[in-house]
Amino acid sequence: MSLTLARIAELTGGRLAGDGARTIDRVRPLGEAQPTDLSFVANAKAVAGLAESRAGALIVLEGLRVSGRDIVFHPQPQTAMSQVARELYPDVAPPVGVHDLAVVDPTARLGAGVRVAPFAVIEADAVLGDGVSIGAGVHVARGVTIGAGTVVHARVVLYPRVSIGKQCLIHAGAVLGADGFGFVTTDGHHEKIPQVGGVEIADDVEIGANSCIDAGTLAPTRVGENTKIDDLVMIGHNNQIGRSVLLCGQVGLAGSNEIGDNVILTGQTGVSGHLRVGKGAMAAAKCAITRNVGPGEKVAGVPHMPLGLWRRVWKASQRLPEMRREMKALLRRVDDLERLVDTETPDRF
Amino acid sequence: MSLTLARIAELTGGRLAGDGARTIDRVRPLGEAQPTDLSFVANAKAVAGLAESRAGALIVLEGLRVSGRDIVFHPQPQTAMSQVARELYPDVAPPVGVHDLAVVDPTARLGAGVRVAPFAVIEADAVLGDGVSIGAGVHVARGVTIGAGTVVHARVVLYPRVSIGKQCLIHAGAVLGADGFGFVTTDGHHEKIPQVGGVEIADDVEIGANSCIDAGTLAPTRVGENTKIDDLVMIGHNNQIGRSVLLCGQVGLAGSNEIGDNVILTGQTGVSGHLRVGKGAMAAAKCAITRNVGPGEKVAGVPHMPLGLWRRVWKASQRLPEMRREMKALLRRVDDLERLVDTETPDRF
Amino acid sequence: MSLTLARIAELTGGRLAGDGARTIDRVRPLGEAQPTDLSFVANAKAVAGLAESRAGALIVLEGLRVSGRDIVFHPQPQTAMSQVARELYPDVAPPVGVHDLAVVDPTARLGAGVRVAPFAVIEADAVLGDGVSIGAGVHVARGVTIGAGTVVHARVVLYPRVSIGKQCLIHAGAVLGADGFGFVTTDGHHEKIPQVGGVEIADDVEIGANSCIDAGTLAPTRVGENTKIDDLVMIGHNNQIGRSVLLCGQVGLAGSNEIGDNVILTGQTGVSGHLRVGKGAMAAAKCAITRNVGPGEKVAGVPHMPLGLWRRVWKASQRLPEMRREMKALLRRVDDLERLVDTETPDRF
Repeated sequence: MSLTLARIAELTGGRLAGDGARTIDRVRPLGEAQPTDLSFVANAKAVAGLAESRAGALIVLEGLRVSGRDIVFHPQPQTAMSQVARELYPDVAPPVGVHDLAVVDPTARLGAGVRVAPFAVIEADAVLGDGVSIGAGVHVARGVTIGAGTVVHARVVLYPRVSIGKQCLIHAGAVLGADGFGFVTTDGHHEKIPQVGGVEIADDVEIGANSCIDAGTLAPTRVGENTKIDDLVMIGHNNQIGRSVLLCGQVGLAGSNEIGDNVILTGQTGVSGHLRVGKGAMAAAKCAITRNVGPGEKVAGVPHMPLGLWRRVWKASQRLPEMRREMKALLRRVDDLERLVDTETPDRF
Repeated sequence: MSLTLARIAELTGGRLAGDGARTIDRVRPLGEAQPTDLSFVANAKAVAGLAESRAGALIVLEGLRVSGRDIVFHPQPQTAMSQVARELYPDVAPPVGVHDLAVVDPTARLGAGVRVAPFAVIEADAVLGDGVSIGAGVHVARGVTIGAGTVVHARVVLYPRVSIGKQCLIHAGAVLGADGFGFVTTDGHHEKIPQVGGVEIADDVEIGANSCIDAGTLAPTRVGENTKIDDLVMIGHNNQIGRSVLLCGQVGLAGSNEIGDNVILTGQTGVSGHLRVGKGAMAAAKCAITRNVGPGEKVAGVPHMPLGLWRRVWKASQRLPEMRREMKALLRRVDDLERLVDTETPDRF
Repeated sequence: MSLTLARIAELTGGRLAGDGARTIDRVRPLGEAQPTDLSFVANAKAVAGLAESRAGALIVLEGLRVSGRDIVFHPQPQTAMSQVARELYPDVAPPVGVHDLAVVDPTARLGAGVRVAPFAVIEADAVLGDGVSIGAGVHVARGVTIGAGTVVHARVVLYPRVSIGKQCLIHAGAVLGADGFGFVTTDGHHEKIPQVGGVEIADDVEIGANSCIDAGTLAPTRVGENTKIDDLVMIGHNNQIGRSVLLCGQVGLAGSNEIGDNVILTGQTGVSGHLRVGKGAMAAAKCAITRNVGPGEKVAGVPHMPLGLWRRVWKASQRLPEMRREMKALLRRVDDLERLVDTETPDRF
């Protein structure tokens, strides 16, 4: 796959300056780009990197003065790069239709243009909307529903009582609907509580590779529209996750939390159970949220505190050994002072 | 699937009050329940939620005064709900027998009533007890043994030298018996140490989705009876895990630890290598255990300290910036005092 | 499989002392070894464990005085044990050739001696070097290249634009090349940025079970030669990982970091994005690296500080509640002193 620079200008709506016939076949950052690569300059600061770059062509922020190169000027170079990337590297999908070596139950309902790769299993009563793509070795349990346009990558497992919205993207190895972690313990022996609530994923959700979203106990664990979940994230049973939430890599949620819209939990953050994290709240990396967090709050720490306080605490904590020394010195000085002042005391009575 | 309330009373041994012919087809919490759902009231406090609930029928704690509803009174409403849930949502299992598109080595021994789903691979000399269920795409390596009644969900991988007890539940994507992380490093180059000890899982163990239990170096990594492991947990080589242990989501154990019976490690807790965590010990969320923990101890922190101390430390730590200010003010005051007292000193000699 | 002690002496180049005809069929540590097991004594301290051991034969450090046993003396007992382990437990691999129930695109190029297990999918234009082994249910997307001698265990997923070097070992369930986590957010709505850079793995790399290495945005995410990655590790997009790096269990790297050669990140360590961790640096367990780390530095803490300082801070932090009490007492004493000294002051003017 390759594109001429003229085609790139047309595709992105940018302004061509230079040789429109030049062809490029990859995108690369400035430092790595070769003569058949397209790269970009998104701001004045990045211009410095140009001298050393071997990039064959560039998308440059409209208004910057760059010359002696084959260029498409554009008001939003990164958006334009994304458009080019989508064109140069079209999405992978199995061919339309069901592969001979897939097992699809006759009661499953498949929409128009559905793609099912080899070694996928689609059980009874599953419903796949138009254009759904099911990767190699995916397991779709009985009764699962998947909305139109959703792409399920290889080796994903969907347990019974899972429903997925439209235009979602589920990456390889993700597991949705496995049993929540619920037990009754009697005399130290754990007895399983059935977890039958399933999982409900809204539209336009992305779920990262090998992430796990457990079934609710009685009602579904839910993930709202446009929420984006990174790799190796664990969402325990009964969580209710809002819209446009970002859960970064290895985040873990224990059970029954409410996570408001537009919350951002950065990498390796954990949330204890039965908490509310308000709309637009943010947790800094590796935070442990152990109490409710209000809307818009920024928190950090293990367990969490307000981000500003946490920064000051962390800074001060590095002086702790010194503070202990100072404290001891101070104690001695006050001891001395008291002795001196006490000595005087009798004089005055 | 649906049940009449009379059948629910019979099934749970509860006391029917109201219309026994009413049918329900789902379980749901009070706030979500619809007219064909069963919900429950487990204590006096929960009665308040009843007024707003649209639940069609209820299981109510025997002794509570609730009327005007179709009810089954029961001494343990949650247990009763579990019984109903199991009946309404029977476990999923492939049909008895080996699917045409599974690959089972002729030397593998399969007990009575074994189920093998499509695209499973069962290698030479594997032994599957009566009633074992092997999900789609599961890989059972040569020589692996699986006890009667154990359910292995889709896409699980069992390496050679893994043995699993009876009545276990292994969730999708779990990997048992991959190489432990052991290397000899010479001049900065890492050379692999073979990891041939395998994994031994006792009876009645549950292992969560995408969790990993690595093979021991020389002897098996072991997990004791009735131990329950959540999703995305990592158990390194040579760990010896006791009975009825709970390892919550994303817990990680480095190598060669002994984890006593009934230990609870909450979410994202880590344990360094070669440690003992005594019977019944508990670690609060995101704890890093870096030294031995005695039986029954409760710990928290990174690295861990006793839970009570950790709470006080964490509370005090929030005053650290203030303490530094106080300390500086105090230093100035003591400086001043010393100056004043010193001034006097000459008078007295 | 079994070996005589004479054969073990020959294999390891050790010195036989005792019955060379004795056969052993397993390796085990001293405490677990049975009469047909081989165990080892690597140092003088370990001799104490011998009295109780039922081991049938031993590899003993040359120079130690041990008798009354069937022994191979060896200057490096652990290395010798590894040699025996490799012989007794040969690696598992599917037979040479492509299984009838694998799907291999006719345009894929397979080297000599390639092994492809059942239910693997190898898409168009993939290139597999000589002796590559592809486990059951592995997905190799179009265009992926895998170097000679590399072993890919069951259920691994390789997305397009992934290349893997020679002699690598990829454990079950690992996912390479899934989309990096990159979005443009406008008015709270997240729009995907295409992630087309792929993944480049050098030679002699090991990747643990269910670990995830995401595709770069424009250029590859890279992992250098001889680097060893444990289970459930997440490597975000655009990371550039050096040679002979060790990433222990559940480590997580956000995007665009440079990790120098021979860096060691212990279990559950996290690295924020766009950082440099210099050659040979080390992070203690559960560290959060949030700023650049220099070559050879040892760090710990959330967020990180120098290891030595962190140890003192952590020690001091346990005295924090006590320090607060001391501080309050001191404040009162200084108040008193000031009152006393003030009282006197008028006298002197």
